Amino acid sequence: MTILEETIRTIRPVHTALEPAVRSHLDQLTKPPKSLGLLEDLAAQYCLVTGTDRPVLGRKKIFTFAGDHGVAAEGVSAYPQEVTPQMVRNMLAGGAAINVLARQAGAQAVVVDLGVNDPLDGAPGLIRRKVKFGTDNIAQGPAMTEAEAVTALETGIDLAREAVAEGFDLLGTGDMGIANTTPSSALFAALLPCPVEEITGRGTGIDDAGLLHKIRVIKDILWINRDRLGDPLQTLAAVGGLEIAGIAGLCLGAAAASRPVVVDGFISSAGALVACRLAPVVRDYLYFSHQSEEAGHATFLKLFRVEPILNLRMRLGEGTGAALAMTLIEAAMRIYNEMATFASAGVSGKE
Amino acid sequence: MTILEETIRTIRPVHTALEPAVRSHLDQLTKPPKSLGLLEDLAAQYCLVTGTDRPVLGRKKIFTFAGDHGVAAEGVSAYPQEVTPQMVRNMLAGGAAINVLARQAGAQAVVVDLGVNDPLDGAPGLIRRKVKFGTDNIAQGPAMTEAEAVTALETGIDLAREAVAEGFDLLGTGDMGIANTTPSSALFAALLPCPVEEITGRGTGIDDAGLLHKIRVIKDILWINRDRLGDPLQTLAAVGGLEIAGIAGLCLGAAAASRPVVVDGFISSAGALVACRLAPVVRDYLYFSHQSEEAGHATFLKLFRVEPILNLRMRLGEGTGAALAMTLIEAAMRIYNEMATFASAGVSGKE
Repeated sequence: MTILEETIRTIRPVHTALEPAVRSHLDQLTKPPKSLGLLEDLAAQYCLVTGTDRPVLGRKKIFTFAGDHGVAAEGVSAYPQEVTPQMVRNMLAGGAAINVLARQAGAQAVVVDLGVNDPLDGAPGLIRRKVKFGTDNIAQGPAMTEAEAVTALETGIDLAREAVAEGFDLLGTGDMGIANTTPSSALFAALLPCPVEEITGRGTGIDDAGLLHKIRVIKDILWINRDRLGDPLQTLAAVGGLEIAGIAGLCLGAAAASRPVVVDGFISSAGALVACRLAPVVRDYLYFSHQSEEAGHATFLKLFRVEPILNLRMRLGEGTGAALAMTLIEAAMRIYNEMATFASAGVSGKE
Repeated sequence: MTILEETIRTIRPVHTALEPAVRSHLDQLTKPPKSLGLLEDLAAQYCLVTGTDRPVLGRKKIFTFAGDHGVAAEGVSAYPQEVTPQMVRNMLAGGAAINVLARQAGAQAVVVDLGVNDPLDGAPGLIRRKVKFGTDNIAQGPAMTEAEAVTALETGIDLAREAVAEGFDLLGTGDMGIANTTPSSALFAALLPCPVEEITGRGTGIDDAGLLHKIRVIKDILWINRDRLGDPLQTLAAVGGLEIAGIAGLCLGAAAASRPVVVDGFISSAGALVACRLAPVVRDYLYFSHQSEEAGHATFLKLFRVEPILNLRMRLGEGTGAALAMTLIEAAMRIYNEMATFASAGVSGKE
């Protein structure tokens, strides 16, 4: 059995039997029942994932997976492919948005090279797990072999397992890869499924003509790869991306270790969807951090019946939404653990 | 001239002339233009309020204003009036939700007694500015005299001025007062204006019959006080509350000192609305932290054309929404100040 298969077999449903005890504790805190809304749900989810009504939230870590995409040659992005390694270096130097927001959230931020089309010589701090120098052009054939997809998935699994062993209790996903909204839209269209038009947006900022072109390219991608969309793993290898596979793997690995994952925006949701198609119970381990401004994300959230934590009109990726949402999840856990109860504070209840 | 009049005269429009420079800086940061959405707007607003494109965000402070309401005698709340002083003591002991969330946000939290119907003996740390032992029953007449309303407003002004002088750059509002959704709904109905049914909700959790009763009581309040709704100050004195006046004063005082205020939920929005009716330019100084689950809040946000930062289905008050939003405003300021530019990081721009 491969590590991937073994991991999928290891994942158990979350501990729903704990819910009454957890909700009862929340109702004893000095506030009207349920009046902290989503914060109470976030705290309850953490308890159910980690299997205790006495939760402890240790350290937080965000993984930004980087990879390039052969499909960039089709002119689907507003930025040139060289931006991927440039932004990886910017992240390693601490100057990208994810660095700023991870610092603010008190989370460790790391960058994992799964498939950047550049050797990234030097680059201190980079986690080097390159599977290949970018995917092949999915408008002409599959992105990668299934073996390559499994390697990228297992890298994510491995990193999650290692992080949990080191005391990280809340993991976040992020992405960097020019053109990666295109494979993400293709994955959504194939795996939700849904029409290409409803799941395709402007990425980093293409114009109207560019959007029409991108939709045509994605339809071509799905046609060219039509015989390779049989199961989730095949689909990932055919029309996905290496960083997307890493994100999916992180979700699987965290769930296998009974820890939640904070899913960033559009690209990370595509990775999370792959993980949920490989192992449906993973869904309950995931926090969806925010609704991205990328047009298709609302479609995904609606069809997958997800309530995002934030909606700030963001569309940057990198893990920026995950970092912001981590602060709210931590706030929820502090509410659960630090508030006084009606009894302890001597406060009267409802009349 | 009273302190209130002088403060209102002091308030200037925010520095809109700075907007091009501020947006230009944001567009030079290593991200697609506008891709951080609302975070960029929050940062820009802070610059315009404080009058600089080199902003510094110092300390943060949340004021929870407490007051009681004679109208509680009409049975409009799910909790007895004794809960107001009990919760004040809980806050002073650090056990309330606002304490937990302010700690998480790195904000100082203080409680101001403007009108609790209890001497609150002992109670170390309490800021004692009691105007009277709760308002009079607004279902039978005015809540307070105009002189009392001015005293409560000027207390808020005074506290804002003092906090800014001490280096607090971001102030937050909060409330504690059993039955205070009733005067808040009455203020919205009179000052927006809007129909009572559209601005009235269940507060801490009354049932269907209770809601119908509350709507009838608020209509009675507006009828009984119909000759006292001539101007915003008169209206506040007639159907408002002491803690609501304090919140309005804090907004005025902060604006006069060129600092923004983070407005909490339903009750704080009523106070903010009073401030904006007294001095319309105050509106640009305000961050509206979240959309409350209290039914009428959506009506207010829509009619006042406000985009709230968060929507977490919360309905607790105290300043809890303000505390959570402060973290996002701080994140926005760190983005503005700490991210690398395309030039400094050697990242290519759009093709």
